[in-house]
Formats: sequence, structure tokens, C-alpha cells
Amino acid sequence: MEESGVDLVVATSKHNVRYLLGTYSFFSQHFQAIGVDRFLPIVGYQRACPEEAFAIWSEIERWQQEVEPFWVQAPITRCQTSLEAVAELTDRVQKLRLGSGTIAVEHSFLPASAMGVLQRSLPHATLVEASSILEELRAVKTADELRLLREASEAIADSLEAAARGGAVGITTREIAERVRIEETRRGLNFEYLLAATGRSFNRAPSEARWDEGAILSLDSGGEKHGYIGDLCRMAVRGEPTARMEDILGQVRSIQAAARSPIREGAIGVEIYEAATAQSASCSDGGLAEFVAHGIGLVSHEAPRLTGSGPIRYPGSHRNRPLRAGMVLSLETELKLPDVGFVKLEDTVAVTVDGYEAYGDRARDWIRVLG
Amino acid sequence: MEESGVDLVVATSKHNVRYLLGTYSFFSQHFQAIGVDRFLPIVGYQRACPEEAFAIWSEIERWQQEVEPFWVQAPITRCQTSLEAVAELTDRVQKLRLGSGTIAVEHSFLPASAMGVLQRSLPHATLVEASSILEELRAVKTADELRLLREASEAIADSLEAAARGGAVGITTREIAERVRIEETRRGLNFEYLLAATGRSFNRAPSEARWDEGAILSLDSGGEKHGYIGDLCRMAVRGEPTARMEDILGQVRSIQAAARSPIREGAIGVEIYEAATAQSASCSDGGLAEFVAHGIGLVSHEAPRLTGSGPIRYPGSHRNRPLRAGMVLSLETELKLPDVGFVKLEDTVAVTVDGYEAYGDRARDWIRVLG
Repeated sequence: MEESGVDLVVATSKHNVRYLLGTYSFFSQHFQAIGVDRFLPIVGYQRACPEEAFAIWSEIERWQQEVEPFWVQAPITRCQTSLEAVAELTDRVQKLRLGSGTIAVEHSFLPASAMGVLQRSLPHATLVEASSILEELRAVKTADELRLLREASEAIADSLEAAARGGAVGITTREIAERVRIEETRRGLNFEYLLAATGRSFNRAPSEARWDEGAILSLDSGGEKHGYIGDLCRMAVRGEPTARMEDILGQVRSIQAAARSPIREGAIGVEIYEAATAQSASCSDGGLAEFVAHGIGLVSHEAPRLTGSGPIRYPGSHRNRPLRAGMVLSLETELKLPDVGFVKLEDTVAVTVDGYEAYGDRARDWIRVLG
Repeated sequence: MEESGVDLVVATSKHNVRYLLGTYSFFSQHFQAIGVDRFLPIVGYQRACPEEAFAIWSEIERWQQEVEPFWVQAPITRCQTSLEAVAELTDRVQKLRLGSGTIAVEHSFLPASAMGVLQRSLPHATLVEASSILEELRAVKTADELRLLREASEAIADSLEAAARGGAVGITTREIAERVRIEETRRGLNFEYLLAATGRSFNRAPSEARWDEGAILSLDSGGEKHGYIGDLCRMAVRGEPTARMEDILGQVRSIQAAARSPIREGAIGVEIYEAATAQSASCSDGGLAEFVAHGIGLVSHEAPRLTGSGPIRYPGSHRNRPLRAGMVLSLETELKLPDVGFVKLEDTVAVTVDGYEAYGDRARDWIRVLG
């Protein structure tokens, strides 16, 4: 904040409110709207003044604050609409004498209605973007955050395996998605999505496609535990894998292993890509391999940002910077082969001082489902 | 739309995108952000031109569109950030020759960043508010919507009863909330929240409070099925209810029954309040009763808007207008009594031509949990 000359950071996205406050609203975590307007929880943090941090929530969170007090000293808990919330915000800004200050807001997570009020109420304030400040703070995880990410990853790995083993011959990918949703919920996660392809299809939207005898099934699911995301991909086959299937998944695993090898505190982000690329070049089908590495935490693609290309477009700001212990990475390798189908592994690893720790690092061979 | 002179309605809230498109994104239904920006699904509907309706989604929904085509003719499925999405939107507006038209947007559900682009790219357009147009459309439900609301309500009633019966003596309300979450998930819902108070506390945030022998427990949960919300409150007691408990829940039930009595197509909204108020006046503890009635659907408090007061503040626009068949109402009566605790029933009823149909209308007496 000091570097960027920001006096006050104002978080309004679900992930950054969760990050700064350390908890979700027990009431509005899973929905956005009540009545005509949207709930807009806000957390404000004044530079170098943690004692002035404030939270703006609705009346109903007053109960939550009674039973599990937030660390912020003066939660304001009477706002049910975004306009009420932003009125409280401008009031708080005035009381902090920051009406002519530099205020960082999340432009993509602040409603246009609220921004209008803010601009009219604080005409002398300079509004700048808060995302990169908050993302940089989130990049290195605490022990508690690492624990949640490990538990989420383990629950995803176990849920994918349980869902694959539990379905009868001919189960549809839509039914499998529902099984994954229930398995993840039973393990304490909030399910986010399942991407599933079976047979030789590369389409991963859950559908009426059936998982038949001899066919492969890719299961790529995201789910979160108290906000922290587990996101893994595992492969199953109904029956015994063919030699070709074994070979392909072996190639994918070898690329994932190569990508892991440089990971430790101080390694440069691009080394991960270089290692994966070199291993792909030595694989018989590696020319078709797509590899991506990215940070993961409260958002499924966050800092450290290592990619310069691929389907997710954002600045590759950590590509040439050293990794730090406590950063958490998602590594993904996929192969789309017309004779085999969609084959992918996605793993989560936490950077440590002398290497990495892989979370939920199981069921990475073919999950064989018989009968 | 014709009345309000709007040429194009642009939905960007989760509920209105769901409403206009008839489905959620299988991928981004449960999260808002990927990367530095937010996903911003958009649906546009040009007045009197359903064939020109369009959806703007991300690349990943292309798979969904393949397996379950949307009704809109030309879904645009290549946008992963709100800025990409709004760039597509302005492009589409220009192609429809509506650059100088009146465009209704959801100011509280459109990011400030996207609004900035819209204003710069369409300097001659008149931007007005879309919420009331879309809410009015949503007020009368179709048969499919009614089915989902009934199924959601039934699943909530069953989940609350199962969660109450399943816990041992001394279970905490936090543990009960987790049980409700799992029970609702098993029944095909997405859990939203549980408000739970036990003993004589009026605090309904799940906590370490224990549900002990002889104590009452209020369970008020929202959960949605394909977006349509079930929201009911039921009462449990560990052991046999005392005569005072029986009396109090009887008073609450009688106020709920009175509130239902005028409901039918053509009844005026305020009649519901008048009936509830009259019955409260005849109850020994009715002076403490709080009653509220509101529409429910994709949003937990939506049209018809019947309240003029109470904790939820919004215009009571249907208070003096006739109800229509297909409207769905949530009726809530609560009594906070120092000698008994927090006692509440919340029910869902659908307005019909000659009365109403109550959804999930069971377990409205004390749920007795022994042992």
C-alpha cells in the first residue's frame, strides 16, 4: 500500500472480503441478492492503521459477530443493500479524514450503482484499482490457509475417486457430476463444478453422455473449504486400461513430474514451464500436450501468475520472479487424442524452502472401475 | 418494456441471467471470479425481437451449448472477463443499431468497470434501470418454476426434520447447520444458509451453542433447486414440548393460517397483513408477533412486494394490487419470548385461481426428538 500511495483499500469482492475479514457471512455466503438490490459486504483497511479497519455488513451478521467476533474493531452491521453499504463507506471515509485521499477499490466487484454514489459523495478522493495490491498480499499463504488448501485438495481427490467407483455401467456424466457434488459436500466442501468427458469426446460439460465399459472418464472438479479451493483432475477407466491408455497417462504424469522438479523457494516461475516443455518434447505425444501452471487460493487462478499464454489471459507478473515458500500452485497437463479421448492430470503443490509439498496427491494412475 | 420505452434489456445478475436464459452456466454457477477479473455472463433481450436475444458467456460454456442448446439463437461464448463481456455487448448493441437507444441495465449487478466501458463505447445511449422490468416479469411463475419451488420447499422441510432428528443430545447449532447443508445437497438443492437458535437465545447464527434436553430449536433454512429458492422455518424440541411451548407454536400457526385465508387470485396484498394482524390481536402473546409476507422465487424476497415495514426495506408495490395466480408467497410469523425462546414458522404458498397451494407444508407442529 505504501509503494502505491494508497491510503485506504476497500474490498468488495467475495474473495477479498473473505481474505481481509478471515471469514464469510454465515448468511450471505452463497447468494448475492435479497430484495431489489444486492448484498455488498465491504471491508476497509487504512494504511498502517489496522485498528481503523472496518467491516460493513447487514443486520443479520450482528449475530455472527456476537458468537465469533471479527478482528476488525467496529463492524458496521446494518446494511442490506449496496446503496446503504456504500453510504456507510463514505461516512467512514469522512470520519477517517480520507475524503481527499487515495482510495483503492475493486472496479470489477463494485456495482456501478455503488460507484456512482462513491464518486458523488467523495468528489475529492482519487479512486484507484485495489486488485493487484490484494492479490499480491494473498500470494503467500499462512499456515491456516495452507491447511485449508491441503484439506480441500484431499477432499477433491477422495470425492472424485468415490464418485467414479460408485456409479454403475452406463451412468451419465450429469449423474456423475451430482455424485461428485454430494461427495464433496459430505467432506465439508462447497462444490463449484465438475468438468467431465467420457469416451473419445473432448466436451467436458456434464451431459447425457454415458460412461460405458472400456471407456475413459476425466474428472476435473473445483470445490472450496471456507473459501480455499481444491481443484484436481483425475482419470478413471471402466475395466482395465489398454496399453495405449497406460502410455498416455504415463506421458502426462511425466510432464507433471518435470514441472514439479524445479519448484522450491527462489526458483523462477518460468523454470516450471521450461521443464514441462522439455519433457513434452521427449514424449511421443507431447506435441499435443497443453501445460499450464498458476497460483491457486481463494480464486482458482491467482498469483503467482506464471502463464503468458493459454486459455486464461492475464499479466504473467510472476513469470520472471522468484517463487516464495507458502505460494500454492496448480499444475495442469492435458492431452486430447482422437484415439483415446481427453486425458488430464491437475495437481496442487505448495512451495517450501527446499522443494514442494503436493496436496491430495493420490489416485494419479488410472482409477480402474470394474463392473 | 413497451410501457417503459426500453429498447433492450441487459441482464447481468445471477438471478436475471438464469431467468432469461432458463439455465445456469454449469461452470461458473457457484463462483464469481477467475483470474484478476470477474465472470460476467450477460443476456440481452431486444423489445419484441426474441430472435435477436443474445447471451455472452465464456469459452467453457461452448461445451454446454453443444449438449443443451440455449433458446437464444447466437450465444457468444468467448468472454472470460467482465471487460471482454462488455466489449461484446457494445458490439452487439451497435449491430442491432441501438447505439442511440434506451438500454436497461442492472446498475447494482453491473461492475463499475463494465459500466465505464459501456458509457464510453455507447455515448449516445440512454441507460436506465432494468430491475423493476425483470422483477415484474418474474412475479408470476410458469408451471416449471412452480414445480421447482414446490420441490425445493419439500426438500427443505424434509432436510430440516432429518437434521433435527439425526443429532445427539448436546449437538451444536454449527454441527446442525452442517447436517442441514448435507441433507439439502442429498436432495438436489444448493444450500444457502441456516438460521438456528436454541434454548432461550434469540441469536440465530450457527455457533457452539448446544441443543440440550428440553430445549427448543428453530431451523430456518434457504436452499435452491436450479435457482428456485425453498425457505422454510420449522421448530423442534428435544423431549416433549411443555404446555407453554404447545400454546406458543399454536398461536404462531393460527397467525399463519389467518394470513393464508384471504389468498387467491384477485385478493389485495394488504388483506394478508390485515388478516395476520387481526389474528395476532386475538392471541395472548400476539403483541410480540412479527409477521411478514413477500414474494419468493429466484430471489428470496421478490415481487409481489407486500411489506411496507419490517427488516427488509423496499417499495411495497403490490400491497394495494391484486394477487395473480402463479405468484408465490413466503409467509413468516415469529415470536421472541424470554421464557420460551425464538419460535417461528415460515411457509411457502402459491396463489391459485380459487385459493392457494402450500409447498412442503409438513412438520409444522413441534418436531419431537427423543434421546
